[in-house]
Amino acid sequence: MNNVDNADLIILGGGPAGYHAALVAVNSGLRVSLFEAKRLGGTCLNEGCIPSKSLLHTAKVFEYGKNSTRYGVMAEEVKIDHQSAMKSKDRIVRALVQSISDSLKKQGVNVIPEKAVISGKEDGLFCVRSENHSEKSSKLLICTGSESAFPPIEGLDEALENGFAITSTDILSLSEVPERLLVLGGGIIGLEMAQYYSAAGSSVKVIEMLDHIGGSIDIELSQILKRELEKRGIDFLLEVQVKAINGRGLEVGTDKGIKLIEGDKVLICTGRKPRINNMGFESIGLDISGGRIITNDHMEANVDGVYAAGDVNGRSMLAHTAYREAEVAVSNILGKKETMKYNAIPSVIYTNPEVAWVGETEDRLTEKGKDFVSIKLPMMLSGRYAVEGGTPRGIIKCSKDRATNTLLGVHAIGNGASEFIFGAVMAIENGITTNKLGKTVFPHPTVGEILRESFNLL
Amino acid sequence: MNNVDNADLIILGGGPAGYHAALVAVNSGLRVSLFEAKRLGGTCLNEGCIPSKSLLHTAKVFEYGKNSTRYGVMAEEVKIDHQSAMKSKDRIVRALVQSISDSLKKQGVNVIPEKAVISGKEDGLFCVRSENHSEKSSKLLICTGSESAFPPIEGLDEALENGFAITSTDILSLSEVPERLLVLGGGIIGLEMAQYYSAAGSSVKVIEMLDHIGGSIDIELSQILKRELEKRGIDFLLEVQVKAINGRGLEVGTDKGIKLIEGDKVLICTGRKPRINNMGFESIGLDISGGRIITNDHMEANVDGVYAAGDVNGRSMLAHTAYREAEVAVSNILGKKETMKYNAIPSVIYTNPEVAWVGETEDRLTEKGKDFVSIKLPMMLSGRYAVEGGTPRGIIKCSKDRATNTLLGVHAIGNGASEFIFGAVMAIENGITTNKLGKTVFPHPTVGEILRESFNLL
Repeated sequence: MNNVDNADLIILGGGPAGYHAALVAVNSGLRVSLFEAKRLGGTCLNEGCIPSKSLLHTAKVFEYGKNSTRYGVMAEEVKIDHQSAMKSKDRIVRALVQSISDSLKKQGVNVIPEKAVISGKEDGLFCVRSENHSEKSSKLLICTGSESAFPPIEGLDEALENGFAITSTDILSLSEVPERLLVLGGGIIGLEMAQYYSAAGSSVKVIEMLDHIGGSIDIELSQILKRELEKRGIDFLLEVQVKAINGRGLEVGTDKGIKLIEGDKVLICTGRKPRINNMGFESIGLDISGGRIITNDHMEANVDGVYAAGDVNGRSMLAHTAYREAEVAVSNILGKKETMKYNAIPSVIYTNPEVAWVGETEDRLTEKGKDFVSIKLPMMLSGRYAVEGGTPRGIIKCSKDRATNTLLGVHAIGNGASEFIFGAVMAIENGITTNKLGKTVFPHPTVGEILRESFNLL
Repeated sequence: MNNVDNADLIILGGGPAGYHAALVAVNSGLRVSLFEAKRLGGTCLNEGCIPSKSLLHTAKVFEYGKNSTRYGVMAEEVKIDHQSAMKSKDRIVRALVQSISDSLKKQGVNVIPEKAVISGKEDGLFCVRSENHSEKSSKLLICTGSESAFPPIEGLDEALENGFAITSTDILSLSEVPERLLVLGGGIIGLEMAQYYSAAGSSVKVIEMLDHIGGSIDIELSQILKRELEKRGIDFLLEVQVKAINGRGLEVGTDKGIKLIEGDKVLICTGRKPRINNMGFESIGLDISGGRIITNDHMEANVDGVYAAGDVNGRSMLAHTAYREAEVAVSNILGKKETMKYNAIPSVIYTNPEVAWVGETEDRLTEKGKDFVSIKLPMMLSGRYAVEGGTPRGIIKCSKDRATNTLLGVHAIGNGASEFIFGAVMAIENGITTNKLGKTVFPHPTVGEILRESFNLL
């Protein structure tokens, strides 16, 4: 050990929760040490949100190019150069990682680029060790994120080993476009990667266990998204039970026995799980019995002085939730009682067309026995959406509480939805009535005006 | 006259204010007659916001195509086909006009496609006549819009007559791209058209009387926009006094006398003025002495029972203001006292990069002696902005009241700004503090997150 330091706060993990918490904490006057063995920015920046959006933007530019005559633009031989797309993605990721690194340094966060292990408690302080460092603090914020979760499929370990099966991390640095790509799992990540590789030239099949794609998405939106992606050449197999994986593809169960779906690569997108192993969590008695660090709404774990934010607490597993949880954790570490609210967390599928939502679906509201009013409008009512070539299938669905006129949910499919959904978040968060929302002057023409229109007609 | 009808409300003009008011009014149970001599949708839909955005989207797709290798997309011989771009624009405008026409018909608005003239008051009712119709009502809503305003320049009448000088309406249906285009006026419309024609192949010079472009824009944003447009090949001549126009170009005053700036077409974008003539406004004693219909904040004119919304009242002259004024007018017509607020009206320049703002600039706040705090951030802090090729010059500037922490202004340059600015409108409109705003969970990654970041650091 080179040195043993005391910090006001030790943070494990430099992803969205960890690096953001570090910045908020140092700006509040705390001395902060942050351990991160890999690159700063976590899964989101290095293996998730950002690189996938870079590839999806490539797919979008490609689609604009292919359909450019629709807008009066001529272009010949439009195609994706996969290697260039990867380089473009790498360049942006590198720049953003550097920018986080610079911020942390500038603000005075002590970043230790080593794998950390909690080694217990001494004199009332938590001890955290890495190869060359040892830190002690009375406060610990755990932001160790998540990792791919794999289903019990025969042959999967071997296929992952030999590279026939790959994870959502691997596919972001695949050097060649597979001729036939099988995507196991039709959730957000699976759909986004299916779209890029399809645009880049793969013949893509998405295999999903459920009867719909998109996870917790509104069912009508899921159906529209499926048709839109099918139109772009992606195939879907729903309600499929995968039994095994072999060197030629996936063995799935059918009425008539086992059938082989052939492919050249299999992307496994069957979810993620909190990263909780081999970091000494047991040494301080952390409850990880549920496969995650249990936290209350102040982001406090079961051990006094220990907090957890981001994927590792398994509560929402979205980068933007991680940012907010990090803020709530730091507030509570500083003694300012703040409470995390999970009722207005947006979700986005960044496909083309995009899907974005916040709050409850109509189905869920009905299940809960809520007295609500709903409206559904075509996105084409927005002049800018029409002008920018938005799909005619795009819709927005809004629900409000009948008694209080407050917004309960907004669900939209169509490009631009990802950028206007925060307005619905603000409305739900601040309890603004739809009457009042409808009076907001949105610039014309914008895609977001469809929110105003919906609020006025709701 | 075929018939004389009584309506609960007569509306003059079927632009954003008029058609929107008609829909709101019939949905509230009023019998509404609406006169419109030209196409429904007004200047905005037929000669303004929408067609210009269609052409600007063409320019954007062209720019994506030209720079596509940056995103890993290969494309050859990318160019704008002006005739196709015009057709694409016309197709969308037609569809949107049809959709308004269908809505009005479906909701039961009596649309009279003729030029209307107010012919006085009989038995307490206002009389409105057109070629084949005559209507009477106790309530009148005037939404006759605006028209191009021309500066006193020698030879301008003749140049407009022979087509060497054209208006912002004419340029939207120009059949050929001029080799050299002079744009007189560096306001919003001038800049938007300069960008499209420059992308379509014109050599474009913008001539502006003021020392900056973009009108009431923040000065730093104006300078960034100028550099961005210059990078794309547009020339600017600022602080220029145009003396005359002749068949070869514009004669401008310089230290050394008169200089000729040559061009093949001159676009006159020197503002618009309320359309108030030859419609019988005098017959009922309407005050139009200021070149507009004077209204109070209930949209009431000086004559009882007469209201005016949209450009004709000269208050803000933006389509989205017109929509809101129409709603306020109808509320007051229905006896529900509602007040128009002008403190949170956003503005957008839809160039590439976009500029969007709401509230006061720092300069204006200083002038007013406000005690405020400001922050300036690079748009590049947003990962999605970076991924989608946003200009590195993009910035956002936010100001809040030091005592109350409420938002006073947001000014941004960079693509995506037009779609997130409504969040600042909502915040100003609802008096939400920046502390509370900063807790809103924006989806990650989105361009709009830069708002959250700003609020948190402000």
